[in-house]
Amino acid sequence: MQTLPGFRDFLPEECAKRNYIFARWREVARRYGFVEWEGPPLEPTELYKKKSGDEIVEQLFNFTDKGEREVALRPELTPTLARVVALHEREFKKPLKWFSIGQFFRYEKQQRGRLREHFQLNCDIIGESDLTADIELVSLCIDVLRAFGFTEKDFAVRISDREFWTDFLREKDVPSDRWGEFLQAIDKFGREPREKTAEKLGNLADAVFATLKSGGKSAKLEALVDGLRARGLADFVEIDVGIVRGLAYYTGIVFEVFDRAGKFRALAGGGRYDNLIGQLSDGAVSLPALGFAMGDVVLGELINGIPDARNAIQKAIKRDTKIDIYVVIAKEERRADALKQIQQLRDRGFLVDYPLTPTKVARQFQAAEEAGASLALLYGDEWPQVKVKNMATAQQELVSSEGLLNRVAELL
Amino acid sequence: MQTLPGFRDFLPEECAKRNYIFARWREVARRYGFVEWEGPPLEPTELYKKKSGDEIVEQLFNFTDKGEREVALRPELTPTLARVVALHEREFKKPLKWFSIGQFFRYEKQQRGRLREHFQLNCDIIGESDLTADIELVSLCIDVLRAFGFTEKDFAVRISDREFWTDFLREKDVPSDRWGEFLQAIDKFGREPREKTAEKLGNLADAVFATLKSGGKSAKLEALVDGLRARGLADFVEIDVGIVRGLAYYTGIVFEVFDRAGKFRALAGGGRYDNLIGQLSDGAVSLPALGFAMGDVVLGELINGIPDARNAIQKAIKRDTKIDIYVVIAKEERRADALKQIQQLRDRGFLVDYPLTPTKVARQFQAAEEAGASLALLYGDEWPQVKVKNMATAQQELVSSEGLLNRVAELL
Repeated sequence: MQTLPGFRDFLPEECAKRNYIFARWREVARRYGFVEWEGPPLEPTELYKKKSGDEIVEQLFNFTDKGEREVALRPELTPTLARVVALHEREFKKPLKWFSIGQFFRYEKQQRGRLREHFQLNCDIIGESDLTADIELVSLCIDVLRAFGFTEKDFAVRISDREFWTDFLREKDVPSDRWGEFLQAIDKFGREPREKTAEKLGNLADAVFATLKSGGKSAKLEALVDGLRARGLADFVEIDVGIVRGLAYYTGIVFEVFDRAGKFRALAGGGRYDNLIGQLSDGAVSLPALGFAMGDVVLGELINGIPDARNAIQKAIKRDTKIDIYVVIAKEERRADALKQIQQLRDRGFLVDYPLTPTKVARQFQAAEEAGASLALLYGDEWPQVKVKNMATAQQELVSSEGLLNRVAELL
Repeated sequence: MQTLPGFRDFLPEECAKRNYIFARWREVARRYGFVEWEGPPLEPTELYKKKSGDEIVEQLFNFTDKGEREVALRPELTPTLARVVALHEREFKKPLKWFSIGQFFRYEKQQRGRLREHFQLNCDIIGESDLTADIELVSLCIDVLRAFGFTEKDFAVRISDREFWTDFLREKDVPSDRWGEFLQAIDKFGREPREKTAEKLGNLADAVFATLKSGGKSAKLEALVDGLRARGLADFVEIDVGIVRGLAYYTGIVFEVFDRAGKFRALAGGGRYDNLIGQLSDGAVSLPALGFAMGDVVLGELINGIPDARNAIQKAIKRDTKIDIYVVIAKEERRADALKQIQQLRDRGFLVDYPLTPTKVARQFQAAEEAGASLALLYGDEWPQVKVKNMATAQQELVSSEGLLNRVAELL
């Protein structure tokens, strides 16, 4: 029996890679003073209806539960965050800087390599409308990727501003209830035939295409890049007003991160959603907010593709999955003595393994090798002395069993 | 808008508690040489049908997906493990010692405090039929709980053996296709009226009740306790043949862990399931196996109830959620200088926060205090010197901005 299509089993090696990604995510978010939280993987379907845009709702993994509730496996975190903040905001001083690591689900049509689940880092700042928050968030996104060993040669953050386009549409006297469809059309530019985009844009098509070609300019976007330059991060960003983001709730700065080689889909994306908390709380709580999400799948592909990043993950996994000590039971009469000391060694926090049943000594040393043990302890004829072997240097010494714990602590 | 009934939001404090539990789980499993893996949260419903027992199937969070597949949010990990091992066992040397930390779901009738999701540690040993594996597994379960600060006064592992009962039933000439219902009846003993159990057991009722009263004896169970005694863990276990476990797939040693005060439901439970991998692979792969699961909810309640454990979690959370440095921007003219150094400090791995917008100095120091910062760095009139304040001792010193990074590294 297999997994469901689009779902992954994480065997030990893949799980170690996943944990490495989680560890870097957590580490850099915490460096920025972000604190961790998490929401439930199942939410009322209503939470996603209309707020997130049609595309997401079409792809919901939703169903009716045994209590006749319309529920959905979460496709993204932002609506949950808005729900939680609307409920609990009084308990916290603003601005909140929150991050979360969790699994998300979309029922996409099956395509090669397209998964129906992935893990995401979500980082959000709630309660700050100043552009300094946008700069802090984009910096964090860049530094998270730098922590994997990527440089400005490997990825770029393309930054845009929805207000740039809403100003444009206002100037062209487009009524605000039609802005959504125009933004969707601009978002699709380059991903669908130009004629189709032109048709959707109607008499604005030429002006939009000209703006996209010239690149667009705005004081806000330039101030944002200046802020990143002050941190030494300007080489990681490009202004690109063609970035609009598919989700309906964005209101200001939006950005997406791509590999420079253009081989993969977006590594991360985010932006400001100043109205979402107000909408989801029916106006009870109104707070400006912004955030980004980074998935594990495209990130994993880029890690595989960039030698420095690949070496870093391999080195880290080797370090994080090795054990400290393998206990070789050379004589079965010594098993009870060995187990007593194994218990003591584990109590001291050492990572210790041993054979559960009688096993040839050579095979035990092989197991020690394969587990990446730093030391092998041999319990045999030397008892009450224990032979301690450094697995890297092959140096051996005899240590009295009473002195063993201290000697091991010195060696490790 | 609230969560769905029975689901939890993990606000920062609860998330830190959850992460503390995960960290202890992971730490002790790794001490025992277990390696981490993970399965998908959604599986074909078929995986749980009949193999797990009726009770679990009735409580499945199951539905039909958009591709007309019968799917279920996983109620437990063991069937997934058996599926994964049956698929991949050739890639690994036996025995496997695997652990996993993930979320599980049951659609139980709503009761006060009963959740529909929880997190579990699962630890399993695959490919070893010897009792030494059972001893290793029970030891691990005990040591995981000891890592939270619990002692033999706080919890006990009640150990039993399904073979004890199947031997009993065989001796009484009960046909093997009826063993399941007898085991279910014994499992319910003490949790439903005695007459009801008696009715289910029929003419075996008196013999069963007598055995339960006398406690039962078996050489295997005694050997298991001897093995734990050799590790100094005998005080944590009790033989109790009344333990049967509800799940249908257990075949040998079974155990459940309870708080000594008898206040809570089981903290953990597990046992041998030597036939499950064979059944799920239609006989293609046959491997003996055993494992246990420990949930986060009852564990969290017991941590709250035992002062040593509660102090340990509070201390750890304080340590794990504090930041290193709060940067106080006393003069806005110094913001750019401060941000440049904030970037450098974060690049060195320090946890650094600062105010996103102009803020009174007193409020900034308050924020430093609340974030648990070890140091406050003040950027103001002293520039190009920075005032470094040790937040614990209130000692201050002036450091040149060029020397700041090294001085901070010395102080932290």
